[in-house]
Amino acid sequence: MNAADLGLPVAVPSTALFTDRYELTMLQAALRAGTAGRRSVFEVFTRRLPEGRRYGVVAGTGRVLDAVENFRFDPGVLEFLADRGIVDAPTLEWLSGYRFRGDIWGYPEGEVYFPGSPIMRVEGSFAECVLLETVILSILNHDSAVAAAASRMAVAAGDRPLIEMGARRTHELAAVAAARAAYVGGFATTSDLAAGFRYNIPTVGTSAHAFTLLHDSERDAFRAQVDSLGGGTTLLVDTYDVTEAVRMAVEIAGPELGAVRIDSGDLLLLAHRVRQQLDDLGAHKTKIVVTSDLDEYAIASLAAAPVDAYGVGTQLVTGSGHPTCSMVYKLVARADSAEPDAPLRPVAKKSMGGKMSVGGRKWAARRTDADGVAEAEVVGTGPVPEELAGRQLLVELVRGGEVVAREPLDAARDRHTAARGALPLSATQLSKGEPVLPTEYV
Amino acid sequence: MNAADLGLPVAVPSTALFTDRYELTMLQAALRAGTAGRRSVFEVFTRRLPEGRRYGVVAGTGRVLDAVENFRFDPGVLEFLADRGIVDAPTLEWLSGYRFRGDIWGYPEGEVYFPGSPIMRVEGSFAECVLLETVILSILNHDSAVAAAASRMAVAAGDRPLIEMGARRTHELAAVAAARAAYVGGFATTSDLAAGFRYNIPTVGTSAHAFTLLHDSERDAFRAQVDSLGGGTTLLVDTYDVTEAVRMAVEIAGPELGAVRIDSGDLLLLAHRVRQQLDDLGAHKTKIVVTSDLDEYAIASLAAAPVDAYGVGTQLVTGSGHPTCSMVYKLVARADSAEPDAPLRPVAKKSMGGKMSVGGRKWAARRTDADGVAEAEVVGTGPVPEELAGRQLLVELVRGGEVVAREPLDAARDRHTAARGALPLSATQLSKGEPVLPTEYV
Repeated sequence: MNAADLGLPVAVPSTALFTDRYELTMLQAALRAGTAGRRSVFEVFTRRLPEGRRYGVVAGTGRVLDAVENFRFDPGVLEFLADRGIVDAPTLEWLSGYRFRGDIWGYPEGEVYFPGSPIMRVEGSFAECVLLETVILSILNHDSAVAAAASRMAVAAGDRPLIEMGARRTHELAAVAAARAAYVGGFATTSDLAAGFRYNIPTVGTSAHAFTLLHDSERDAFRAQVDSLGGGTTLLVDTYDVTEAVRMAVEIAGPELGAVRIDSGDLLLLAHRVRQQLDDLGAHKTKIVVTSDLDEYAIASLAAAPVDAYGVGTQLVTGSGHPTCSMVYKLVARADSAEPDAPLRPVAKKSMGGKMSVGGRKWAARRTDADGVAEAEVVGTGPVPEELAGRQLLVELVRGGEVVAREPLDAARDRHTAARGALPLSATQLSKGEPVLPTEYV
Repeated sequence: MNAADLGLPVAVPSTALFTDRYELTMLQAALRAGTAGRRSVFEVFTRRLPEGRRYGVVAGTGRVLDAVENFRFDPGVLEFLADRGIVDAPTLEWLSGYRFRGDIWGYPEGEVYFPGSPIMRVEGSFAECVLLETVILSILNHDSAVAAAASRMAVAAGDRPLIEMGARRTHELAAVAAARAAYVGGFATTSDLAAGFRYNIPTVGTSAHAFTLLHDSERDAFRAQVDSLGGGTTLLVDTYDVTEAVRMAVEIAGPELGAVRIDSGDLLLLAHRVRQQLDDLGAHKTKIVVTSDLDEYAIASLAAAPVDAYGVGTQLVTGSGHPTCSMVYKLVARADSAEPDAPLRPVAKKSMGGKMSVGGRKWAARRTDADGVAEAEVVGTGPVPEELAGRQLLVELVRGGEVVAREPLDAARDRHTAARGALPLSATQLSKGEPVLPTEYV
């Protein structure tokens, strides 16, 4: 099992049913027509970034590798497919032995992307590749959307740490993936224990308003929390009166109090007022954490305020207005026969209603200027120009069905920081605009 | 295991880590302070509907019941909590025996709701209730958002069936929950096989553009599909030239061809043109399915077009612009001591920045006019007025830790249709407006 490779405690169950039914009906028809074995190339890309966004962030690649490795048809699944008459007996037989044995290349996790970037390329027989469409898109569309929001928030937050706390605002397992994607995009910690368990992301959390309300007084609640968690804890100070709560917090925990959290009200005003009060009380090292309906714009607006950390929920896990990317999984080339050495022929749906695709198996490279700043995303189907050979973006992820590019999550996180840092400065502007790099087809 | 009750093939694993860390730190502090055993009432509600929406739809209740039943701390989870120092030894000991043994009441699944509606009420010791916050909110916030979008689309579609096909646009397991919520909201089928497997929702699907492109010609592709799936299949006719494809489709499958699918272009124009062509070819019963970036407005705009079914993806699974609800889980009452008969005291955070809560354990009823049309959502904490006693909305879901209200998904689906039908007619307008019922606090 893949998960063991990274010492993760969670086994990934079969992913075979995260599949749109048409993938199986196409398989059945192609098996019968004798075309299922044609060597095929599918590519994942998006025709556009969400409106106004300057760059995208590839996230979920590691989860895709897990999902491909665990895409197998167990007896219970085969029985379901048989009972419902979803596919015929020869197809069931074929599925029972299914393992992906092809090749996958892709942008490594954390890399940035642009319209047309071939984020992932899946190559093998039509039959084995077509089945992976939905699960690959589900993962990349979701995780990349969250990572893009996270990246913008990380830019806005600068050196101040960001806490992911959106679990309650999205599906319980989407939340775990969201915490992972947020970490790739630059968040430091998560409130979600399942994300800590599964991906080893540092977890944080102290108390909610309910804890204060449970006790006979705010003083009792603070004392109970400090008794249990020590003076370095974070006390939530906005249940009743913030000024009174801050005074009491320092009285109870001492000036070594770790932090106070503000979850409502005018955060800019409160942060200034609370900082002043903390300093007056000698609690110079006590930090201020804010956590109320933040997005990248609210974070940026607090840049000059004495805030030490931001907790972000809803807007992060919903991609800050763009909860999904528009990534598609398209057949771009296939052989004319099932012979292993039959040459690949580029294919593409005819342009209609803007849904254009570019046929052919693609490479991509990021051209940089003399100062090393990226200036274009270059995508091509022919030979790679010599000057771009060293700047290619796709890396080998799966070779002959074996995952060859498993990596710790921190590697993706570091890669994202580096990739974003190599973009033109305007990439980090929050204002709306065109993609910061043009895509050139050669 | 709960799932067996409904003959579902999927066991629900432990949900205990779908938890924000602060729930466990509050537990630890409350255990130490001697307040953990105080009888407490938590309520789930929202302060507002998404902007412009007329009503909300409760969905996910059945999944909440599964999650509560499976909220238990297995040895691996306890080890994780111990290793990371998340809670102390006495808390670990307490968690090892955790089962929810309290009571849950709530709006039944499929019911509509409004600002302030106490959608769910969780009652028991503080310790046992506080742990459920995140998992309950995750499920209700996600599933209700999708169901609300589905309900609007179902209104727009009228008698025409809706196909859920958004799996690729959202997290792979969120997709399964989305298919379930969409079914509650009025969708007829799903493309997602996992949703069929897990919830017995009817699945559909035939072929994608890749299937056409795989073959040497569109004719070969159509023939292969008809050979495999029969003449009643749905052929995708917009890979190259729609008119030519429709002609060929009827030629190959005969006038008994089940349907044609159009996935791009001007759907209104194409639907009219294709209907005319099908009729001219004698394929009067061949249906037209459209599937391109639809939302409730696009569906409504096709009401007069000869369309027989709509496939909806992105906009459904992202809640048609509102991917999450704003439901919160608040402590509204608690006892002053851990004595079982200690009276409950209403509690509420002080109003600040608009985050007002109403303290006290609530009932809710929907008042109707003489014609049986709903006219107000009435929420109260005192005695229930006699005339509303028979119109109460909360039903018992869990009694002493035992689920007492498990039901087939069709029951929720039917309930939603009935509940929506009893609202004033303006509820079904797609135009933005205020909630169709006022919430009255008594």
